[in-house]
Amino acid sequence: MKANNFKVRGFFFSGIPAGIKKDGKRDLGLIYSKVPAQVAGVFTTNAVKAAPVVLDRQRIKGGFCQAVVINSGNANACTGKEGLRDATQVTSWVAKELGIKEGAVLASSTGVIGVPLPMERMEEGIPRLIRALSPDGWMETVEAIMTTDTFPKVERATCRIKGRRVTISGMAKGAGMIRPNMATMLSFIVTDANIKTPLLQQMLVEVAELSFNRITIDGETSTNDSVLLLANGMSGHSPIGSKRDRDAARFQSKLLEVCQSLALSMVRDGEGATKLIEIAVKGARNRDEAKKAAYAVAHSPLVKTAFFGMDANWGRILSAVGHSGVRMDPNRIDVFFDRMPIVKSGRGVGGQREEKAGEVIKNKSFKVTVDLRQGEAEFSVFTTDLSIDYVKINASYRS
Amino acid sequence: MKANNFKVRGFFFSGIPAGIKKDGKRDLGLIYSKVPAQVAGVFTTNAVKAAPVVLDRQRIKGGFCQAVVINSGNANACTGKEGLRDATQVTSWVAKELGIKEGAVLASSTGVIGVPLPMERMEEGIPRLIRALSPDGWMETVEAIMTTDTFPKVERATCRIKGRRVTISGMAKGAGMIRPNMATMLSFIVTDANIKTPLLQQMLVEVAELSFNRITIDGETSTNDSVLLLANGMSGHSPIGSKRDRDAARFQSKLLEVCQSLALSMVRDGEGATKLIEIAVKGARNRDEAKKAAYAVAHSPLVKTAFFGMDANWGRILSAVGHSGVRMDPNRIDVFFDRMPIVKSGRGVGGQREEKAGEVIKNKSFKVTVDLRQGEAEFSVFTTDLSIDYVKINASYRS
Repeated sequence: MKANNFKVRGFFFSGIPAGIKKDGKRDLGLIYSKVPAQVAGVFTTNAVKAAPVVLDRQRIKGGFCQAVVINSGNANACTGKEGLRDATQVTSWVAKELGIKEGAVLASSTGVIGVPLPMERMEEGIPRLIRALSPDGWMETVEAIMTTDTFPKVERATCRIKGRRVTISGMAKGAGMIRPNMATMLSFIVTDANIKTPLLQQMLVEVAELSFNRITIDGETSTNDSVLLLANGMSGHSPIGSKRDRDAARFQSKLLEVCQSLALSMVRDGEGATKLIEIAVKGARNRDEAKKAAYAVAHSPLVKTAFFGMDANWGRILSAVGHSGVRMDPNRIDVFFDRMPIVKSGRGVGGQREEKAGEVIKNKSFKVTVDLRQGEAEFSVFTTDLSIDYVKINASYRS
Repeated sequence: MKANNFKVRGFFFSGIPAGIKKDGKRDLGLIYSKVPAQVAGVFTTNAVKAAPVVLDRQRIKGGFCQAVVINSGNANACTGKEGLRDATQVTSWVAKELGIKEGAVLASSTGVIGVPLPMERMEEGIPRLIRALSPDGWMETVEAIMTTDTFPKVERATCRIKGRRVTISGMAKGAGMIRPNMATMLSFIVTDANIKTPLLQQMLVEVAELSFNRITIDGETSTNDSVLLLANGMSGHSPIGSKRDRDAARFQSKLLEVCQSLALSMVRDGEGATKLIEIAVKGARNRDEAKKAAYAVAHSPLVKTAFFGMDANWGRILSAVGHSGVRMDPNRIDVFFDRMPIVKSGRGVGGQREEKAGEVIKNKSFKVTVDLRQGEAEFSVFTTDLSIDYVKINASYRS
């Protein structure tokens, strides 16, 4: 996709190498709206939150944002009060250069943790970053937020709202674990729709639950995970403030499309991943139990290594479900690989049918359905296999 | 250690190749007491329980056991009603050949799941197994229960109780994941002490909590996990029925020694493990939170791969604790590698001190202490690193 496909009215983008990453790649990015945008955000649930997350959570309460400054190569996490002071300082430099309010600037970081931000480089980089701003700068910003990602993660959608064409453009960086440090997923979504802040926030929370919160590489949440959604209203339609507005649903479904696509890209690019696997649990007593069982399977190193080895080891799936603590009867459970039954009432189907089902996991992408036959609730989650490369990537010395 | 070190009065052991394993190694074992022994057992908490676990849980309620028949190469798990019928049949053959009650025979299995027991081989093997019984047969039984274990796991202890010399001998097989199948740990402990069944059971539960339940390779519990303790009273001392008996504590502390040693052997032999790591959490609000945090660190693939890579990546430890959901203040937490501080109040100690602490994880064995500084509770658990070989072993096709 070409960069100009991601253009959104009123937004400007840039990304430059500022010397934060050691390899000289782009590591400082900026998203700027010429008018203050309504803003929504969802953040890591980890009790250890990076400084920019602490700052952003506070600032989005104001409801508006005009710029987001993002760096890779340093997470500004576990950096104490100095870290928060540094993050604030960075937004202050950006605000001053752009001539906007400091409170309208958000920050995001990803990279090595426990190391102070290289403030001289940030200060030196910011004026260059701002000079580089362009409506066509999208892919430079995308590059600047990448770490171990092996490909850029972008998606867009358009729709008509109240007679105006509305664009939603999203970028993300890997849910895979970041070498040399911990998991971080960042996503920035910009739109020229005009959605009032409380509704925008509600929509983003709901959409995240069905996209970013449905993927898991290794069960960890990072100190820095952040999703920010900016809506600057420049498409010109009258504001939407309630779900009772019919156009609200149309916008939200497009937002969901973008976020699901970004989320799946992150799984596909999970560190060392060779497969994209949907784990669907149905027939649970309630949704919480369905979720618990789905995550137990999706996080099981034994299940994940079996998938990597293309071993249709359904016993490990049953054991993971059994271990999850949900109500189940091992003699009722059914398992399907795509649509092929492999376990019926807790027993392997055996023979050619089992062999045929076993073939499914040789595909790059497949679905595992576990039917507990206990009730009506279901939940599904996307994950990857656990490969030798995952260990290699994450075992490397920080360099 | 020589086999005759493990002799216990009145016990006989054997282990033979019966053709259950494909490689022709010993795969059928028997432990026999010439008089009925008092028996205690702890079993997997997985909702999916193998047939022999279902059988044994029922039978130990009787309080006595005279023989345990164990096979490797087939777990008799996820085998439905036929599996339970098969396990019962095996104990019936053993009882008949030995001329004892069927209800006094317990069974254990480990190996591939979802495949029926090869009953012809079991039937053919049992008479040979019984003919091979000997007070010196200990190591043959140990061999017969091994699967991916790279070394036999045995421990013994002796003590004097009421003027009599009492011996406790224990054997175990790997907590590492079993190729080609799922995690199973089995342990069989025999003693000539005379401890009444209810007390024996209480002691075993308490000891297991401080030994077998303090180790974790990858957070999974198996369908087959079992620990059986047989006390035949042949040392001749008068029976102990209560903790008020001073000798009860002496016996239990020796039992703990044996079980802790077996448990650590299992961790050391965790599949692909290169390191033995104690994760100790202290300063938690309560014991549950200490436990939750300790397991979050011990199960984190990011922490475990960092240890494999000898990367003193303390940020991953903080993130794992933060992710665990326990009450904490990221700016209070301290972390030590052995006695060396690496994190103080949520920040890396930096410089030479941090480098020196980082050296610790180059050792084969070390302790990570996380002090939450929230309260007085603590909990510790032993684990391994996550290596490339772990993935290789567990990704292999079932053969």
